[in-house]
Amino acid sequence: MDFSISEAEYKRRLDRVRKFLARRKLDALYLTNGTSMFYLTGYSFIATERPAALIIPLDGKITFLGPLLERDHIPLKTKLVEDIKTYVDYPGEKHPIEHFARFLTDMGLAKKRIGIDNKAGAGAIWGYTGPPITKKMREAKFIDAKHLVPSMRLQKSDNEIALIRESAKWANLVHTFLQEYTTEGLWDVDVALAASHDASTLMKKTLGPDYEPMRRSSPVGAGFRGQIGAMGAIPHAMATKQLIKKGDVLVTGASADVGGYSCELERTMIMGKPTAKQEKYFNVMVKAQEAAFETFKPGAKCSDVDKATINVFKKAGLMHLVLHHTGHGLGLEGHEPPWLDVGNEELLRPGMVLSCEPGLYEVGFAGFRHSDTVLITEDGAEIVTYYPRGIDELTIG
Amino acid sequence: MDFSISEAEYKRRLDRVRKFLARRKLDALYLTNGTSMFYLTGYSFIATERPAALIIPLDGKITFLGPLLERDHIPLKTKLVEDIKTYVDYPGEKHPIEHFARFLTDMGLAKKRIGIDNKAGAGAIWGYTGPPITKKMREAKFIDAKHLVPSMRLQKSDNEIALIRESAKWANLVHTFLQEYTTEGLWDVDVALAASHDASTLMKKTLGPDYEPMRRSSPVGAGFRGQIGAMGAIPHAMATKQLIKKGDVLVTGASADVGGYSCELERTMIMGKPTAKQEKYFNVMVKAQEAAFETFKPGAKCSDVDKATINVFKKAGLMHLVLHHTGHGLGLEGHEPPWLDVGNEELLRPGMVLSCEPGLYEVGFAGFRHSDTVLITEDGAEIVTYYPRGIDELTIG
Repeated sequence: MDFSISEAEYKRRLDRVRKFLARRKLDALYLTNGTSMFYLTGYSFIATERPAALIIPLDGKITFLGPLLERDHIPLKTKLVEDIKTYVDYPGEKHPIEHFARFLTDMGLAKKRIGIDNKAGAGAIWGYTGPPITKKMREAKFIDAKHLVPSMRLQKSDNEIALIRESAKWANLVHTFLQEYTTEGLWDVDVALAASHDASTLMKKTLGPDYEPMRRSSPVGAGFRGQIGAMGAIPHAMATKQLIKKGDVLVTGASADVGGYSCELERTMIMGKPTAKQEKYFNVMVKAQEAAFETFKPGAKCSDVDKATINVFKKAGLMHLVLHHTGHGLGLEGHEPPWLDVGNEELLRPGMVLSCEPGLYEVGFAGFRHSDTVLITEDGAEIVTYYPRGIDELTIG
Repeated sequence: MDFSISEAEYKRRLDRVRKFLARRKLDALYLTNGTSMFYLTGYSFIATERPAALIIPLDGKITFLGPLLERDHIPLKTKLVEDIKTYVDYPGEKHPIEHFARFLTDMGLAKKRIGIDNKAGAGAIWGYTGPPITKKMREAKFIDAKHLVPSMRLQKSDNEIALIRESAKWANLVHTFLQEYTTEGLWDVDVALAASHDASTLMKKTLGPDYEPMRRSSPVGAGFRGQIGAMGAIPHAMATKQLIKKGDVLVTGASADVGGYSCELERTMIMGKPTAKQEKYFNVMVKAQEAAFETFKPGAKCSDVDKATINVFKKAGLMHLVLHHTGHGLGLEGHEPPWLDVGNEELLRPGMVLSCEPGLYEVGFAGFRHSDTVLITEDGAEIVTYYPRGIDELTIG
């Protein structure tokens, strides 16, 4: 069994890039974004301060420029990178961007038109500093092409959708464990790591020798990100000191890496019989999510989905507890376009995959949010994640 | 017990920023880097497509600009942010950078000189796009100040060193579990998650109710990042399909979050009695690390440390198996300056904390790398991590 994007699909993607280059009269594309490189070749790496770039010439070899420590990694992950040009390390006796300028010159691109996703010529994370590639190749013309690959990623193929569906299964398993293991007196991290461990080993045993996570070091994870009790009112709490106790509302999250793709699954769970106020907020949140589900279809505006949840929250008199919009695209990154935001008039199109996660947050009380993964189909939409959403099924003890 | 940077130290850091502003005749500092924001205030957040910035005026309130979902988070993490100005979400009916321009104008900065770490005015990750803040505030003068906070971070204070020392203890525990749990026939991910789970729950039980991880969602982690058997020849392999088997060389990594700070601990372990070749490579690597240890002292050049390991590798005739330099600064980020690189003439200074991790990698065979955390002291250096380094202690079974 195979858990990745087919080589044929990677080739179609590269063809689309080359058609874009021809149309724009560009001689090459220069990419620094690791997700874009993965999307076009299946090769993923740990981004560091060391500059790396993928060069796709209109004619000529697809070439990786980067640090020596990636040299032997690439051929294990992709057949589509045809040449590899490396410098030893950063900063080096000669700066990597100087090497890149020479590599591009050697490729015949010194005086050419080059589409680029980042004029620095490098990802520039951690302690990286350096001159922009545009200043090192004065005779080349660099043209902004940062939207190209992200726009290709908006509508998912059948192959991509199959991977996201497979991800949803394992997210469901790890979330089941997360709920089963959640007990008063435990630290949420304990529950999260136990569930992630058990589900990861089962996922590998089930999918067998061909499976490996492609963009993370472990296959499946679930947790609470600190959203325990009153800390649940902080949507991105990250972590908390407090232990799980009776009466807490908990907000979860789960996902799994299948061929580098992930779904998004989040639930609100309640420790013990819900209070009237907990039940009210929970049900309003569910109603908002259901209202959003109704709006997903090709041709609807992204803003329509956000407006549907706002409408529910306003009618319930709880709009002052809303801290974020309804959702975002997903697949290869935690968040990706399009945004389900009142300010986004983009149209939904078949193959788009989005989170649907309206939430309510009251300081000193709790947070309430489910997130499901929604696929836009030819004539409507389908909810890919299927973990129970009702308050009875999500009440613990 | 306290596991964080003292408020007094944060105030000293902010004073240093304001002295820099006064010296450069700047009216404010505009920071988009999340690590810089954490370094100056103790507030950490999950970076997304949503722009966020910390404004430190020469006179006036330290102000966070960012998404609504961070509003209630900040006061829980820091008392040093004095004002919070938010937009609802990205992209919004009005772009966040337009909001930021108005916020800065309201703060009296419309025509002022502003030091900035990123002229885009936003972190620009995931699907973010937007105009640079410099284009939205035509009458202000933006001056590059991206080196300020990173340069402040180079030499660690006693408080920072204490946190890194505490991190080293928990890295030692999780690595002990990692070694104990490593068995033929297991997937490395299984071992990694079991060790990380057990050590995380023990760390919390030991450090008690005041402890929480500050920059990650779990306290301590260890793993192999895919460096199992022949995959060990890929320094950043990320993950592997294969199971651990007799004869494999394994490369590990472990760390722990204490007040947002981490150490670095990595080891080479061998499954069963080492072959002559494994032993040779292992011992050359250890010898290179020891040669580097000898060179660490205030006033030595960063390049001297790298040259010391290169010298050992060349003498052994194994320089063709070296894929990266000797190490890097650490503390708040995976890698940070200074770089222990042959091209870096910077001088080591007391309080610098660096990894020391020369490695050997042979395709189709294995990888060999230990990494230890080294502190530069007033008159020499101290190795902060203390897990055994010898081949006997790192041979399993």
